Amino acid sequence: MTKEDVTAMILSAKKQAGLTWEGIAESIGMSPVWTHSCAMGMNAMPADKAEAMVKALGLPQEAASVLSESPTKVWAQAVPTDPCIYRLYEIVGVYGPTIKALIHEKFGDGIMSAIDFDLHITRVPHEKGDRVKIEMSGKYLGYNAW
Amino acid sequence: MTKEDVTAMILSAKKQAGLTWEGIAESIGMSPVWTHSCAMGMNAMPADKAEAMVKALGLPQEAASVLSESPTKVWAQAVPTDPCIYRLYEIVGVYGPTIKALIHEKFGDGIMSAIDFDLHITRVPHEKGDRVKIEMSGKYLGYNAW
Amino acid sequence: MTKEDVTAMILSAKKQAGLTWEGIAESIGMSPVWTHSCAMGMNAMPADKAEAMVKALGLPQEAASVLSESPTKVWAQAVPTDPCIYRLYEIVGVYGPTIKALIHEKFGDGIMSAIDFDLHITRVPHEKGDRVKIEMSGKYLGYNAW
Amino acid sequence: MTKEDVTAMILSAKKQAGLTWEGIAESIGMSPVWTHSCAMGMNAMPADKAEAMVKALGLPQEAASVLSESPTKVWAQAVPTDPCIYRLYEIVGVYGPTIKALIHEKFGDGIMSAIDFDLHITRVPHEKGDRVKIEMSGKYLGYNAW
Amino acid sequence: MTKEDVTAMILSAKKQAGLTWEGIAESIGMSPVWTHSCAMGMNAMPADKAEAMVKALGLPQEAASVLSESPTKVWAQAVPTDPCIYRLYEIVGVYGPTIKALIHEKFGDGIMSAIDFDLHITRVPHEKGDRVKIEMSGKYLGYNAW
Amino acid sequence: MTKEDVTAMILSAKKQAGLTWEGIAESIGMSPVWTHSCAMGMNAMPADKAEAMVKALGLPQEAASVLSESPTKVWAQAVPTDPCIYRLYEIVGVYGPTIKALIHEKFGDGIMSAIDFDLHITRVPHEKGDRVKIEMSGKYLGYNAW
Amino acid sequence: MTKEDVTAMILSAKKQAGLTWEGIAESIGMSPVWTHSCAMGMNAMPADKAEAMVKALGLPQEAASVLSESPTKVWAQAVPTDPCIYRLYEIVGVYGPTIKALIHEKFGDGIMSAIDFDLHITRVPHEKGDRVKIEMSGKYLGYNAW
Amino acid sequence: MTKEDVTAMILSAKKQAGLTWEGIAESIGMSPVWTHSCAMGMNAMPADKAEAMVKALGLPQEAASVLSESPTKVWAQAVPTDPCIYRLYEIVGVYGPTIKALIHEKFGDGIMSAIDFDLHITRVPHEKGDRVKIEMSGKYLGYNAW
Amino acid sequence: MTKEDVTAMILSAKKQAGLTWEGIAESIGMSPVWTHSCAMGMNAMPADKAEAMVKALGLPQEAASVLSESPTKVWAQAVPTDPCIYRLYEIVGVYGPTIKALIHEKFGDGIMSAIDFDLHITRVPHEKGDRVKIEMSGKYLGYNAW
Amino acid sequence: MTKEDVTAMILSAKKQAGLTWEGIAESIGMSPVWTHSCAMGMNAMPADKAEAMVKALGLPQEAASVLSESPTKVWAQAVPTDPCIYRLYEIVGVYGPTIKALIHEKFGDGIMSAIDFDLHITRVPHEKGDRVKIEMSGKYLGYNAW
Repeated sequence: MTKEDVTAMILSAKKQAGLTWEGIAESIGMSPVWTHSCAMGMNAMPADKAEAMVKALGLPQEAASVLSESPTKVWAQAVPTDPCIYRLYEIVGVYGPTIKALIHEKFGDGIMSAIDFDLHITRVPHEKGDRVKIEMSGKYLGYNAW
Repeated sequence: MTKEDVTAMILSAKKQAGLTWEGIAESIGMSPVWTHSCAMGMNAMPADKAEAMVKALGLPQEAASVLSESPTKVWAQAVPTDPCIYRLYEIVGVYGPTIKALIHEKFGDGIMSAIDFDLHITRVPHEKGDRVKIEMSGKYLGYNAW
Repeated sequence: MTKEDVTAMILSAKKQAGLTWEGIAESIGMSPVWTHSCAMGMNAMPADKAEAMVKALGLPQEAASVLSESPTKVWAQAVPTDPCIYRLYEIVGVYGPTIKALIHEKFGDGIMSAIDFDLHITRVPHEKGDRVKIEMSGKYLGYNAW
Repeated sequence: MTKEDVTAMILSAKKQAGLTWEGIAESIGMSPVWTHSCAMGMNAMPADKAEAMVKALGLPQEAASVLSESPTKVWAQAVPTDPCIYRLYEIVGVYGPTIKALIHEKFGDGIMSAIDFDLHITRVPHEKGDRVKIEMSGKYLGYNAW
Repeated sequence: MTKEDVTAMILSAKKQAGLTWEGIAESIGMSPVWTHSCAMGMNAMPADKAEAMVKALGLPQEAASVLSESPTKVWAQAVPTDPCIYRLYEIVGVYGPTIKALIHEKFGDGIMSAIDFDLHITRVPHEKGDRVKIEMSGKYLGYNAW
Repeated sequence: MTKEDVTAMILSAKKQAGLTWEGIAESIGMSPVWTHSCAMGMNAMPADKAEAMVKALGLPQEAASVLSESPTKVWAQAVPTDPCIYRLYEIVGVYGPTIKALIHEKFGDGIMSAIDFDLHITRVPHEKGDRVKIEMSGKYLGYNAW
Repeated sequence: MTKEDVTAMILSAKKQAGLTWEGIAESIGMSPVWTHSCAMGMNAMPADKAEAMVKALGLPQEAASVLSESPTKVWAQAVPTDPCIYRLYEIVGVYGPTIKALIHEKFGDGIMSAIDFDLHITRVPHEKGDRVKIEMSGKYLGYNAW
Repeated sequence: MTKEDVTAMILSAKKQAGLTWEGIAESIGMSPVWTHSCAMGMNAMPADKAEAMVKALGLPQEAASVLSESPTKVWAQAVPTDPCIYRLYEIVGVYGPTIKALIHEKFGDGIMSAIDFDLHITRVPHEKGDRVKIEMSGKYLGYNAW
Repeated sequence: MTKEDVTAMILSAKKQAGLTWEGIAESIGMSPVWTHSCAMGMNAMPADKAEAMVKALGLPQEAASVLSESPTKVWAQAVPTDPCIYRLYEIVGVYGPTIKALIHEKFGDGIMSAIDFDLHITRVPHEKGDRVKIEMSGKYLGYNAW
Repeated sequence: MTKEDVTAMILSAKKQAGLTWEGIAESIGMSPVWTHSCAMGMNAMPADKAEAMVKALGLPQEAASVLSESPTKVWAQAVPTDPCIYRLYEIVGVYGPTIKALIHEKFGDGIMSAIDFDLHITRVPHEKGDRVKIEMSGKYLGYNAW
């Protein structure tokens, strides 16, 4: 049983039970972003969360151990074609140097960690059309000198 | 006088005057992200803000008209090498499909606009090491049917 | 049942019933371009149109829910090889900067949306050989300042 | 004197005289798209139009012969990064197979020529926000059998 | 039944019957290049030629309708590795700019069509070793002005 | 003095003297394709032809030795963007496997040489529009067994 | 039965019979390099050698006709990753321009044929560690003038 | 003074003095391949050979220290376009797996070093046309186990 | 039975027996890095170690001969996407030129062998968070002169 | 004054003074790897080290402020061609998945930081030829759950 198998099981169970990612996340006490990411095989669950996931969706027991294995993260398209994901890529292209400059101004020479990191998505009502809000937070890591 | 020329003038004036992006942004009444982005030639300033920029930094008058021209946005590296920018690219690779799934769950089939869009960066104090917070907000655009 | 499965079912049903895309589109009250695009899995149908599609072509009921799922848009060739599609790519290469300059002249710094967007194709009789006419219309989106 | 030199002269003369592409095109009796495209060195002008262009903008006489030379069309980015041009590329990716299918349905096995071709851009007022309209027309060319 | 299926059937029938492409082409009254190209799924046959092909090789009737469908032309290698095909690619690299210059000199700004096009291959006896002769002919298309 | 320098001199001399490639080729007793190719630095001239070229165009004497140096053939675009050259590339993609199959049928396992090779271009009058004719001839080389 | 099938049969028969490439080559009276290359489907055997191969390894009769078909040579990695093959690629990168310069010095403007070509590999004993010796020989082909 | 500067000086001095690479190599007591490779900046000369080179060609003294610096080896084209170098690349593609298999058969799991390596080129007279002979020899390196 | 088959068997046996790579390595008397690398099919085991591996994990006898075959090393991503492996790639990009300069300073013009090479990984306790230590050692190879 | 300017000044001063990287590093009290990396513009120096560097090499005062600016790290070759750097890239390809597996076994799901990171190079005497030793140490970062 591979991570791909478990992803397929989760998608199928979710569809049959009429669940949402928000709902699944709530039932295991974690955020929807992290929960979906683990379901896609892009992150690993600690044992208790994997157990909760298996119970919430009625998956076979072996799925829990698969959900807690360290994943190998692979994406096939260096430049993503899906418009919804491409817009994020475009933001990195357009605003990447700006984000870098302001991190350097506020912290010094370093980066925002993509490992010690979290991400939230919210729908923000707006009179001219609702907005997507994405909040990222990552630990600042400064370059070593030795 | 090209956008590149004006970028060079701004960087030089900023260094000599010992200014920060936060400070420059404040002096023209805009956000630091947007201000830096215009200074890099990645966005266009409305005429009054271009005027304010030219005054704040003591640039030649022609620079104002250049700052308000529509830019052609070019980045040379499909996969950025700078570690600070690469981490953002990696986040798109790892969390892109998750962001897409949650936008679909919350809104329907569509995207977060990267044009009707804004972005803020904050330093968040944290006992185990301060964190970088990035907040993006873009208008939701749903696919047309016709 | 995946989007690929439904595409195959539609192509097969269309062939057996001797239908055209124009005909299928008319039977569900939508345009041929949008109808074909949904059939290829590149767009999502609202529930009522998906129902109409399933009825018009005698597809199994599950196909309706698949037709209304948000698609992930993927194309494998950064530069398309098929001559009919390549000519469109070439037009973007040759006339892209011109289209950009005229949008800026007519509207300001912004883009034509590819989401709030529609497209029509017509055969135009011409004495020296009939012509293909492609009409695109997309909402203008101006860049935000913040 | 190269095509690049003439492009630079035209851009500079246009800026100093406060002209628009619409205005320049009208003064030589051609469309703005074609006029801009020749100015960018992507198309060649017949001798009389090149003369008119040189007069309208006060360019040196040699520029006329350069404007009428056959250009070599080069674009450096297989996938364009500028958001305004990328949206056109995305449209080819998403709707390319659909356009191909409908050309085949309406005409037979063949293509829309990108040489015997013209293109127009209009601003269409709309209560929810004005729209960009792009109209393309190209001769249908059917594949030979021999 | 796909174009790939029909290609496989043709190759197998040709081998078992000990036929040549010259022979098959003659039996349907077309050229070997065009016949092979249709057999590979790179061109579409008019209905009568598809019928003749099916008869000549004893293929199932459905193959005729597949042979007359408009193909999607795909090649996977931007730079071909097979030495026999690479030499053609190299000729385009080395002599492409020359062919372009001479077309411009003889015709004006335009191209040789690859659609309204035909191609023949002959073996030319030569005392120092026989030669391959390739003759291409395509309609000249001049660029539009509008 | 490099090959690029000599190419520039030739283009300039040709323009000032109002010559054509046909005319230059005739004056040195060679074909226009080969002559243009040497002028572009893609082939080397034997000493006597280089002398004739230098005389015909009034180039400095050193140019003759440069014209007879062995060139390094470089093209920057794996897939050419210029439409006139791209059509040739497309022909290799679409008809390459067919040309290969027919060379194998007529000769055996081998290739058409691109070195012991010549190429001619003619304008062929045609009532529905004149045609470009390209004739290539290369020595057949069969694979060695050892 | 494809070339891939025959390659697999040969590898399996070789393993079971405990043969070496040297031994197989000797039994059909050819060199090990050429024999291995045909076994991999990268070269074609004349009928008698294909018969000898089939006998030597106890392959089914159809394999002989497959071994003598003209192959399509494909390699998937433009830059090979296997270290043993990469070293050869590196040699082309580092010494390619040198080999070219010396061929030009010794022969004139032309190439070493990779078709009328042979290659041998030997183990050369050496006190500081044995060495691999690779000897290539290909016919010189000079560029045509016409 | 860079390696590029010294390469240019060497090429110019060689041309003016009418020397050959064979001759230069002989005058410093090394092989032509290695000598040319150092002249191109692809290898470093020991101090005495660099001195001999400087004397033989009348270069400024500083050139000697540049010739003995460790070079950074860069080639810009992953797939070389020059036909003479491409043929070598093609040989790696076609015969690479064969060379690997025979090294494994003769030595075990390992490679031919491209560092402890030498290469010679000879013209071999042949009645059907002279041949280029390339001899490479590199130390066998077996993989470590630890 | 291929290297991929044996890798799958090893992963499955390891999971069922609850073993670690450290443990497996110890049981065959080799390092964990080398042992894992052979298990992944990236290195070949000498016969006795392959036998020990087969015994330690209860694999079928044929697996031993497969483990000792010379592997073809393939990686599909020129730039790895997995964050754990990407960081190593980034280190090569950032510190590669530095490592090269210091090897040249300490040894002369040459390289660190990746064949006569070993690698160890250790966990180093640290009060601010434990550290990963990677130690590589490879034989220095100096460039030949000939 | 850019980072490139300062790199050039440092290389020139180092050559004229006959210094080594070891020596320069010692004089500013840092490691040779880090010192060289800052000199190449790949890392930033704290103010005191930049001052020490400027003094040690007699650079102009402005160089100190440049040395302490946050760099943008760029490398142009996704796959490095220089053999000394390529070997490091090859090690990542061959041993990357192994290093990842052992980090997961020793620590859990996470990475070795390339920011909170140091690197040392030593020459290790060995009777069969001296060896290059590279030691890397980076902080382990475990993936967040939220």
